[in-house]
Amino acid sequence: MQETSRLEAFSDGVMAVIITLMAFNVKPPAGASLAALGDDLPELLVYVLSFAIVGTYWNNHHHLLRATERISAGVMWSNLHLLFWLSLLPIATGWVGHFPGETVPSAFYGLLGLATAVAYWILVRAIIRANGSDSRVAQAISGDLKGKLSLVLYAAGTALAFVTPVASYVAYVAVAVMWFVPDRRLAPLST
Amino acid sequence: MQETSRLEAFSDGVMAVIITLMAFNVKPPAGASLAALGDDLPELLVYVLSFAIVGTYWNNHHHLLRATERISAGVMWSNLHLLFWLSLLPIATGWVGHFPGETVPSAFYGLLGLATAVAYWILVRAIIRANGSDSRVAQAISGDLKGKLSLVLYAAGTALAFVTPVASYVAYVAVAVMWFVPDRRLAPLST
Amino acid sequence: MQETSRLEAFSDGVMAVIITLMAFNVKPPAGASLAALGDDLPELLVYVLSFAIVGTYWNNHHHLLRATERISAGVMWSNLHLLFWLSLLPIATGWVGHFPGETVPSAFYGLLGLATAVAYWILVRAIIRANGSDSRVAQAISGDLKGKLSLVLYAAGTALAFVTPVASYVAYVAVAVMWFVPDRRLAPLST
Amino acid sequence: MQETSRLEAFSDGVMAVIITLMAFNVKPPAGASLAALGDDLPELLVYVLSFAIVGTYWNNHHHLLRATERISAGVMWSNLHLLFWLSLLPIATGWVGHFPGETVPSAFYGLLGLATAVAYWILVRAIIRANGSDSRVAQAISGDLKGKLSLVLYAAGTALAFVTPVASYVAYVAVAVMWFVPDRRLAPLST
Repeated sequence: MQETSRLEAFSDGVMAVIITLMAFNVKPPAGASLAALGDDLPELLVYVLSFAIVGTYWNNHHHLLRATERISAGVMWSNLHLLFWLSLLPIATGWVGHFPGETVPSAFYGLLGLATAVAYWILVRAIIRANGSDSRVAQAISGDLKGKLSLVLYAAGTALAFVTPVASYVAYVAVAVMWFVPDRRLAPLST
Repeated sequence: MQETSRLEAFSDGVMAVIITLMAFNVKPPAGASLAALGDDLPELLVYVLSFAIVGTYWNNHHHLLRATERISAGVMWSNLHLLFWLSLLPIATGWVGHFPGETVPSAFYGLLGLATAVAYWILVRAIIRANGSDSRVAQAISGDLKGKLSLVLYAAGTALAFVTPVASYVAYVAVAVMWFVPDRRLAPLST
Repeated sequence: MQETSRLEAFSDGVMAVIITLMAFNVKPPAGASLAALGDDLPELLVYVLSFAIVGTYWNNHHHLLRATERISAGVMWSNLHLLFWLSLLPIATGWVGHFPGETVPSAFYGLLGLATAVAYWILVRAIIRANGSDSRVAQAISGDLKGKLSLVLYAAGTALAFVTPVASYVAYVAVAVMWFVPDRRLAPLST
Repeated sequence: MQETSRLEAFSDGVMAVIITLMAFNVKPPAGASLAALGDDLPELLVYVLSFAIVGTYWNNHHHLLRATERISAGVMWSNLHLLFWLSLLPIATGWVGHFPGETVPSAFYGLLGLATAVAYWILVRAIIRANGSDSRVAQAISGDLKGKLSLVLYAAGTALAFVTPVASYVAYVAVAVMWFVPDRRLAPLST
């Protein structure tokens, strides 16, 4: 457990700053009226979605690392790789917040979600490789329906952005809602 | 205790960044005179209030988690939910700082305070559920007069913003002052 | 030691963000020439000074808390109080960086240094009160020539800003240099 | 191990904020088109390079500190010195991102890389001095071909910026790629 602690602390730091900077990026309304607050609404809604994404990764990362006994150089780089894609989320969030009805920002958001989900999958593989296929974490992970569904939904959302951005937001929100239910596979290990 | 450590570390990270970003949001005065510093005064005063709010939550969160022995998925999501509302505080602080005499920003600040206080209450309930009603933390919490008073004062402050924002600031400051006195119920447990 | 760990972690978080935000505040030069870099020089120099101040507080805070066995509600609020003044340093740094030759920003920087030094002194007192006058930390602290000298130098620097800001910078740099030598009183305890 | 924990936590905090602020510094594209995203490309590419640099330092710092048993005042100041140079990386990254074809920003980036590498070397020396030349960390470090090569490549890159910035980017990327392979000397100690 000790061995993973700095990895967890660093990841926590990055995710904590990402959340706070995304919120900070939503500028205070330009006027003092309710209408001015309304102008901020798209940005606020995208922030809620992005907050849910980072919160979900933090949650899953927490469960995953609690079940992890050994880390390797591969695990460390895979973790940095995951943090890299997460660190681009404030840019995508700001972009979609400014152009909520446009195709390219919405597709970019989906591609970033896809890349992040792939990076998480790579991290899980690296952890299983470092801990052995008969380890606690490997047995707990087997299956991973939700992870696969996320990849499909982000890919679908990216494609749907070229039809209408609204449809892609539905796909992205579906991923967030799906993960909201905690990971049954690892949860028992951590309590 | 070990079990709560990553939850505490992540929350600390978010709250530390919130505090520093709020201060950073108060731009250096535009001129080099005392008058220019004076123009920053409303922003500085709102920052002091918001700092006191985050400081109070950090303090109470610290006492609460020290008395907590077990966390659950519900506790983790309740904690993220609390951090979500706290992460909006820099926006509200910046908005009130720019329009200190206006109704809508002041009411927004009060509503945010209310939402954050409700989120804290939900977190406390989730922790008690995870630890059992005869646990150390549950017994320590019983009563919670201050928590209830905070809800009343934030609601009153939000309503008063429609009469005069000055009255609502009095209510918000009253909450801050009330919490300044450390929580007698949990303090003995943590020393 | 365990008891102080979250206090240390939170303070570390705030100080880490302060340092990085101050550097971030120094905008990349507006042009691609050496002259453009030169325009940033005052800001960079003030940043170096402010970095040294935060680094010194982190260092001393580290030594102080390592020698601390017990914390109280008073210690927690005193620590938040210290972090409050430190959190204003990016504003003062940006202000002096933009107006390096002006009296008011320079005096403001000195007053902030004074307030921070007083806050640190209050924290030390609170820790001694919580640990007893015969505790390890109390015996290690007795004397504290450097702390007193810092107060005098910041006060002098603030006053000198009304003669010429250059003189006050000399005083502020003197404080930084003086603390650069590690605290002999607590150092042996921490190794 | 305990003794180094706060040093590690603080360094993690600073590096986590640096990474996230650098990403944040890449503003969302000004338009909603692919062309607008293309305008951000130089900034994004420089960010990838800078992310790799910070990630490498975090990685090496992690391995180094895991092998460290004792810290001294010299180690603490050397570590702050390393963080100082790292904290300037967002400025250099933003500068190069805005003027990717210019000599001075590119040379500045190389000089900063050089200064950071020297600071890391100083930290390693300070740690060896504090732990003794027959300590685990000292024996693990002997040789350090990569560290020396980094210094040469950063110096060469800085000089090449005066011929063509493209050549200097090749040198900087070479350093990043070289470090991507984990440090064989310390890796066995940490697993």
